[in-house]
Amino acid sequence: MVGGGQGAFIGAVHRIASRLDGQWDLVAGALSSDPERARASAAELGLDPARSYGSYEEMARAEAAREDRIDAVAIVTPNHMHAGPAVAFLDAGIHVICDKPLAATPEDGQRIANAVQRSGKQFILTHNYTGYPLIRQARAMVARGDLGKIRVVQVEYAQDWLAEETQGKQADWRVDPARSGAGGAVGDIGTHALNLATFVTGLKLARIAADLDAFVPGRRVDDNTQVLLRFEGGAKGALWASQVAVGNENALRLRIYGEEAGIDWAQETPNVMRFARFGKPVQLITRAGAGAEDAANRVSRTPGGHPEGYLEGFATVYNEAAHLIRHADHGMPPPEGVHAPGIEAGLEGMRFIAACVHSSANDAAWTEV
Amino acid sequence: MVGGGQGAFIGAVHRIASRLDGQWDLVAGALSSDPERARASAAELGLDPARSYGSYEEMARAEAAREDRIDAVAIVTPNHMHAGPAVAFLDAGIHVICDKPLAATPEDGQRIANAVQRSGKQFILTHNYTGYPLIRQARAMVARGDLGKIRVVQVEYAQDWLAEETQGKQADWRVDPARSGAGGAVGDIGTHALNLATFVTGLKLARIAADLDAFVPGRRVDDNTQVLLRFEGGAKGALWASQVAVGNENALRLRIYGEEAGIDWAQETPNVMRFARFGKPVQLITRAGAGAEDAANRVSRTPGGHPEGYLEGFATVYNEAAHLIRHADHGMPPPEGVHAPGIEAGLEGMRFIAACVHSSANDAAWTEV
Amino acid sequence: MVGGGQGAFIGAVHRIASRLDGQWDLVAGALSSDPERARASAAELGLDPARSYGSYEEMARAEAAREDRIDAVAIVTPNHMHAGPAVAFLDAGIHVICDKPLAATPEDGQRIANAVQRSGKQFILTHNYTGYPLIRQARAMVARGDLGKIRVVQVEYAQDWLAEETQGKQADWRVDPARSGAGGAVGDIGTHALNLATFVTGLKLARIAADLDAFVPGRRVDDNTQVLLRFEGGAKGALWASQVAVGNENALRLRIYGEEAGIDWAQETPNVMRFARFGKPVQLITRAGAGAEDAANRVSRTPGGHPEGYLEGFATVYNEAAHLIRHADHGMPPPEGVHAPGIEAGLEGMRFIAACVHSSANDAAWTEV
Amino acid sequence: MVGGGQGAFIGAVHRIASRLDGQWDLVAGALSSDPERARASAAELGLDPARSYGSYEEMARAEAAREDRIDAVAIVTPNHMHAGPAVAFLDAGIHVICDKPLAATPEDGQRIANAVQRSGKQFILTHNYTGYPLIRQARAMVARGDLGKIRVVQVEYAQDWLAEETQGKQADWRVDPARSGAGGAVGDIGTHALNLATFVTGLKLARIAADLDAFVPGRRVDDNTQVLLRFEGGAKGALWASQVAVGNENALRLRIYGEEAGIDWAQETPNVMRFARFGKPVQLITRAGAGAEDAANRVSRTPGGHPEGYLEGFATVYNEAAHLIRHADHGMPPPEGVHAPGIEAGLEGMRFIAACVHSSANDAAWTEV
Repeated sequence: MVGGGQGAFIGAVHRIASRLDGQWDLVAGALSSDPERARASAAELGLDPARSYGSYEEMARAEAAREDRIDAVAIVTPNHMHAGPAVAFLDAGIHVICDKPLAATPEDGQRIANAVQRSGKQFILTHNYTGYPLIRQARAMVARGDLGKIRVVQVEYAQDWLAEETQGKQADWRVDPARSGAGGAVGDIGTHALNLATFVTGLKLARIAADLDAFVPGRRVDDNTQVLLRFEGGAKGALWASQVAVGNENALRLRIYGEEAGIDWAQETPNVMRFARFGKPVQLITRAGAGAEDAANRVSRTPGGHPEGYLEGFATVYNEAAHLIRHADHGMPPPEGVHAPGIEAGLEGMRFIAACVHSSANDAAWTEV
Repeated sequence: MVGGGQGAFIGAVHRIASRLDGQWDLVAGALSSDPERARASAAELGLDPARSYGSYEEMARAEAAREDRIDAVAIVTPNHMHAGPAVAFLDAGIHVICDKPLAATPEDGQRIANAVQRSGKQFILTHNYTGYPLIRQARAMVARGDLGKIRVVQVEYAQDWLAEETQGKQADWRVDPARSGAGGAVGDIGTHALNLATFVTGLKLARIAADLDAFVPGRRVDDNTQVLLRFEGGAKGALWASQVAVGNENALRLRIYGEEAGIDWAQETPNVMRFARFGKPVQLITRAGAGAEDAANRVSRTPGGHPEGYLEGFATVYNEAAHLIRHADHGMPPPEGVHAPGIEAGLEGMRFIAACVHSSANDAAWTEV
Repeated sequence: MVGGGQGAFIGAVHRIASRLDGQWDLVAGALSSDPERARASAAELGLDPARSYGSYEEMARAEAAREDRIDAVAIVTPNHMHAGPAVAFLDAGIHVICDKPLAATPEDGQRIANAVQRSGKQFILTHNYTGYPLIRQARAMVARGDLGKIRVVQVEYAQDWLAEETQGKQADWRVDPARSGAGGAVGDIGTHALNLATFVTGLKLARIAADLDAFVPGRRVDDNTQVLLRFEGGAKGALWASQVAVGNENALRLRIYGEEAGIDWAQETPNVMRFARFGKPVQLITRAGAGAEDAANRVSRTPGGHPEGYLEGFATVYNEAAHLIRHADHGMPPPEGVHAPGIEAGLEGMRFIAACVHSSANDAAWTEV
Repeated sequence: MVGGGQGAFIGAVHRIASRLDGQWDLVAGALSSDPERARASAAELGLDPARSYGSYEEMARAEAAREDRIDAVAIVTPNHMHAGPAVAFLDAGIHVICDKPLAATPEDGQRIANAVQRSGKQFILTHNYTGYPLIRQARAMVARGDLGKIRVVQVEYAQDWLAEETQGKQADWRVDPARSGAGGAVGDIGTHALNLATFVTGLKLARIAADLDAFVPGRRVDDNTQVLLRFEGGAKGALWASQVAVGNENALRLRIYGEEAGIDWAQETPNVMRFARFGKPVQLITRAGAGAEDAANRVSRTPGGHPEGYLEGFATVYNEAAHLIRHADHGMPPPEGVHAPGIEAGLEGMRFIAACVHSSANDAAWTEV
């Protein structure tokens, strides 16, 4: 693991997620750019001191040289610190699991993409919401044509934790364009929303028109984002990402309307999905319950009615990564049914952020993605 | 009543609403442009045959001449048939209660506005959602500053009844631009959504960018509308109106986020509203229950927990009309706390439709409202 | 109308309900046992002073003698004041619409039943929840066998308005056994719950075991009631009625489980019902929406998504009464599909209250109903 | 681990739960009473073959003799197979984590209790719902007096998976009194419901009256249980446990009403709890969100809005066990704030089952617990 030292939120999440299904052990780390904190964090986590490194460069070099080298590295640093370790580990021949968005700048994103290509190693981006069972179900239903041709996609991600000027480890880098990149809410959560929409629908985004605002006085990145979406093939949609929507914690919601049916799913109540065929009563499809199918059940751990949530979804991304890496290491093609966001999803996110920032700077002009 | 003969949906609603609180009696009508159907409808409703008229012109003339003339006329015809009777009755000195939107064309809207001005008579537009108690509560809370300065307004109105090509009395005129006007979904339900947003927030819409689609093959007006909103003073928002969102019946929802608090209300469960102050647990304010205040209780009929709904809200508009008309007839100013959408709301709706149609025809260019 | 003078809650509800669909006009009344208040109330309501009576005896006598006599009387007095007017009007040959429960004592209930029998007049008890469209739907589904043989019936009615010692017109008589009868919560809302359960399931209650409590110090009737239910034919159930359940307004909920399917409906969100066949996703059946059938649509006024509620349900009971009375007055059998609770439902309620009180006094011994 | 071999549901849950927070490693097991399956299961889980045992007796003996002996054993066998291993490991000086209910018979339960006492070892019963953060919150609120004196406790646990005659590893032993004990639904899920109610309220159950039914033809244990509850101190309540409630997956719900406030929580949406003070709007307290306090946050892993569920709650029981065991092994008293159900909760459950079975056999006579 690179990053994720004391006080980090997402590092702890990655550790739980990797451990949950027993597929991964944390054995080495460069847990902080501050060597002292790196050492202390490693000790807390029970890492072998010999494998607690002072920098990611050192770690990539040393691990690559070991017989019992790590199977993959998890990069859980702020956005501007993704490209360095990602390139270093890929070039050292080590698979990478990287937090989203891909990078702070399109240039950095491209550097990673180049490294993925030249290394031939696996690159998994933890767009964790793709791991929820009912999201898999929705994806399978759309792919099978249950909804008919898609017409409208409404996706939103509403939070309120940045509704006031705030300080703290989580907030600081997210509102600093030097560390988060040009996108604030659009990068941090807008990319999640977009990824979810395209993961489920299989649609390709063509053009966007975006209106970005920084409502909190003095804020240098957007904290509220309105985006009109035009997909290839004619579907339309809207994306709203906000960190100032008071009363919302992590309200990611996806609605998809096709010619024949519609779907409605919300992340905070992820174990039930509304599915409506035109003219028929809405059905409640539950995780692992009546109506859930292979695509969902494959990534479910417990029978219906036992709520699985955020950590389980995140763990599924780690499981998918394990499958992909094992197969790749044995020279096999990816197993059927395994899905994990990769470099392409990452680049799409980077293009989306850039397009939104550009559009907004041009009075919400339509911008290609 | 003008319009509302056999088979009409909204005419029956107006009749129930006007009767519900005992403030109005239906005593005269030109219930259909088809004289036969007008007569039959009048008989069904128990109207005095002498006051069942063959045309609105005849009715306006005859009623104006009676000692016991009607207090007001309710116009419940399709959009393109609003201006004729509205002007006729206003010019005959009779108050008008008119279904929304104001008219099929801006020109017709202006004709009505002129007649309102020269007659000095009351003109009430039945944007019925303004009659819900918790909408009154929300309006009072915003006005008092409970939310702080408004930043974001999300409003949507999703239906699915026009998801396929459909026929019938309700559908036919709504998808015929000659009768509905240039706006389809944007006129029929988008104006409701906009009116609700401005009624509650008191904000004035400045500019919009709209993307209108007609997804059903052959449809000549929009059935799905995405609109970016910019209000005077800096608030932003989005409006989505759809008649092809499969699985939605009448899903009008309004969310308002200010610097200090947020509100979330949905028409299909109108007796509860979520209210959140930043950093505090969400509160469920219920109609006539704990947390409901004067502005809401004034238009409530029963204690909390006894669901009031669409017809009650509509009836409240009729009650407000009765108050306004009584006061006007006695030369008194409108009583405090009484609110009913009038000609200004109607013109705002007309400008909104025109702006959306114009914007969409210009690739969603920003358009002043 | 007998009762329902100034300050009465349920009288106003009856008036709105009777007026809502235009089937009834209020033309005469003995609105209060206090003659002064009766007169003032009549004036407020615009009654002809000649038909505002000082007592129900006078009213029954005078109305029976009129050519344009009332079609029916609505009795909306406290429980102990039902029998007097009911018997008087029935014996005067006038149909009766009476608030529930039937009476304060079994003896009074029997007096009314005798009068119904000897008069041959219609007697409608306003168990208003039978008027909700989805309750009609549920009843039809059970009758058709959609649920299979019924096994379990859970019904509850939770309120909190009597959680503290309270005073006021509504509360005073309800906690005074001389006026409410021996049952407090069990009579006021428990009878509603039981009636709803038997109306929908068609089951006949055989035996109960009840535990009644008066939690508020000094209260002389129960404010919380737990009842085990045994129906004829083997179904079991539980009924909970509480007026001290803090956080509940009018939380009446009915759940029915059969061998093949289950139903779940709640009064405060009455426009949607959960229906589940074993092994299939739960379906949301909406009022007048997909899945709603004739039995529900017959008593619906608006399309799906336009919430109808308490007043509409109540109005349906008045409409059913109008149908029954019209048919009876013409010597015709009741029209098909018309349902209104009558004297039998009233007597069942009286037996239920008596059985619960008896059971609770005997340490919750099983008691026949 | 004892039990939990291939095909077992709850064994897999215990393994995930123990691993989730990195507090436990699975290093030894007697995973099946069938030695072949035990071996195969151990291999699948990557256990050292030397520590995969053919029987729990062998495992207890061998592990007790090892330097690197296990810290605790998890017993995840059917009910009738709890006492044997529990006593064996306790007597071998090894702490025990045991699935619920405690045992199949009161005699077995007492044997375990005796072994706990004579060994002085820790005994943790996995009543996993005690691990949910908002349950901890509710417990703290009741203890602090936020609800005032408790009056009414409504608890229910509804499932439908046994609504028909069914076969399979999970179902078979649960409907066989020789393996499950005399209680069916009452033992399998009724004990969960009771434990939750007493864990949160701190009340002690005094007497119950129970009506048990086996609705599925041929079933030998109850599949539906209605219980009236009387607590010491005067609180009343009802418990409903059903495995034939079609449309319910794992619908455990707890409602508590005190003199001043009420609480409402449901297991399937465990990240939000309704809390109402009398006369105030209902508040939605969210896990780790606004309103959540130390008692809840201590056992939370992620910020509000990231749903945690069944596995996280279960993992918390394992964490609490780790705390208790570490402290015990160092001769220290249990750390403050740590809660895990132990032998006393297990015995209470056994008494509850026995009382319900006895009461039901005596026509629901009141029976002391």
